[in-house]
Amino acid sequence: MELGHHNPDKDVIQTWFKSLQDSICTGLEAVDGGATFTEDIWLRPEGGGGRTRVIQQGNVLAKGGVAFSAVSGAASPAMLKTLQIQPHATDLDELEFMATGVSIVLHPASPCVPIIHMNVRYFELSHGVWWFGGGIDLTPHYVTPSLAKDFHTGLKNVCDAHHASYYPEFKQWADDYFYLKHRNETRGIGGIFFDRLNTASRQVSKADLWAFVQSVGEAFVPLYAHQVEQTRHLPFGEREAHWQNIRRGRYVEFNLVWDRGTQFGLQTNGRTESILMSMPPVANWEYNYVPAADTAEAQTLDYLKKGIDWAGFTS
Amino acid sequence: MELGHHNPDKDVIQTWFKSLQDSICTGLEAVDGGATFTEDIWLRPEGGGGRTRVIQQGNVLAKGGVAFSAVSGAASPAMLKTLQIQPHATDLDELEFMATGVSIVLHPASPCVPIIHMNVRYFELSHGVWWFGGGIDLTPHYVTPSLAKDFHTGLKNVCDAHHASYYPEFKQWADDYFYLKHRNETRGIGGIFFDRLNTASRQVSKADLWAFVQSVGEAFVPLYAHQVEQTRHLPFGEREAHWQNIRRGRYVEFNLVWDRGTQFGLQTNGRTESILMSMPPVANWEYNYVPAADTAEAQTLDYLKKGIDWAGFTS
Repeated sequence: MELGHHNPDKDVIQTWFKSLQDSICTGLEAVDGGATFTEDIWLRPEGGGGRTRVIQQGNVLAKGGVAFSAVSGAASPAMLKTLQIQPHATDLDELEFMATGVSIVLHPASPCVPIIHMNVRYFELSHGVWWFGGGIDLTPHYVTPSLAKDFHTGLKNVCDAHHASYYPEFKQWADDYFYLKHRNETRGIGGIFFDRLNTASRQVSKADLWAFVQSVGEAFVPLYAHQVEQTRHLPFGEREAHWQNIRRGRYVEFNLVWDRGTQFGLQTNGRTESILMSMPPVANWEYNYVPAADTAEAQTLDYLKKGIDWAGFTS
Repeated sequence: MELGHHNPDKDVIQTWFKSLQDSICTGLEAVDGGATFTEDIWLRPEGGGGRTRVIQQGNVLAKGGVAFSAVSGAASPAMLKTLQIQPHATDLDELEFMATGVSIVLHPASPCVPIIHMNVRYFELSHGVWWFGGGIDLTPHYVTPSLAKDFHTGLKNVCDAHHASYYPEFKQWADDYFYLKHRNETRGIGGIFFDRLNTASRQVSKADLWAFVQSVGEAFVPLYAHQVEQTRHLPFGEREAHWQNIRRGRYVEFNLVWDRGTQFGLQTNGRTESILMSMPPVANWEYNYVPAADTAEAQTLDYLKKGIDWAGFTS
């Protein structure tokens, strides 16, 4: 879909995100080769709604969701406070917001296949403030440096086509964001994360930022398909399945304790089932579980650190 | 341990809590009849420490913890803000805190046996502010009204021996606190919850409040032993075990999203393994899972509401 160099308005953005959800679901069904998505359409009483699509018990995907939403209405004081926007007091009664985006979390059946997350989103307020946000990050249960390098190189290529500063900046942002402070662990091998991209913050046009966000959305299926193809046929046993469930527990901890979108959504009457489609099918917790030294599990923990240059990784 | 009518100081309180941990662990090992507790002693770099005891894979208890801690040090601005204490600015550099208590969460193996939680705690600041807090609440995977009535009647008797206002007030407080707003569900059948009990807020002596908190701590084992004895031999199958894991997922959601102690602990460098000993051994999530009408599972959801008078329940 070529949008040229025009600055997109919210309807154009919303329509494109909806078509992105379609193409991603089609692409993921092809990758999975078994299950298909089911769809829930929901309306938000205060304005707007969404289209949540879920896949379960597939050949590759044990549980995943691809959600589109476009919600709008009066901007509440709680929302403005969370967004750290100081409106003029007289504005408050009339300020309307609109938020639209696509969110994805996929939990594979095999511990050899990584968990992936993507989000692309747009937000605007009726008094003219707007921004884009989003990101993609990968959470392998077992970190394989060559595959981590492939993933980050792919993201770097997407970013570099738009601005040389994007990859280094957004990679670091992802390292900082997808971080379990209480575990001193990154969620996985990171990826890119960005927020509040607009003309004021970036000195580029809205059309340029939109083209970047579209590129991120379009990169999702090929990036993940590559990870899946390289890992789906690897053998595993009880030990790997157990470790997968421990790591899924960490994923739950990140999403419920640290993810700002999840926290904000749950505490402000968001659609719970759409927000918590990010939960894994199963998770385990064991008190003070520490893998034995010199195992693949211990090696993975060593890789869950900020600041690893995966795109430039040499073994 | 008879403390008479003297106002206890923090050392007396801490010593008693430690002995409470001992007696509760002994009592629970007798209830379980299989596994025993293992112990981790830890020190907090900034002051104090704790003694975390964990039981796993018992006859009754799949995973549980009974933690004692007594921590102290400089009261940080973050702590004072969370506690909503406004110190005189000149105090800040010198203000010391001390917090001690016993916390328990027990996840049984059988879906017929309820999850239980208890906490008793004491907090003081060096400029003279102090309070007691705590509570007990029960989370059956399947709610049985007669057992819910037994549990609440037991708590009411403990409370009524100290003050007629305690049970009604603290029962409602538990309904409001142990609540998953994003699910519109209570965590379980509630119990009692109280915080910031002191002479100023309650018009009774510190010795009286301390006697109440001690009674709560001593009530824990008999209350839970009764629940276990009435449920441990009930038969169950795949269906009940599946439902148990869905309910354990809700327990995770409450603790990570809504429990103030967990949130505060994880975000302020508390001891992660001691905080997250409350996690179940396993949890499941399914998108939009709703039990069929007129099943025991649907009936349980109907009971997960605020304001049910369990102590006065008549079928």
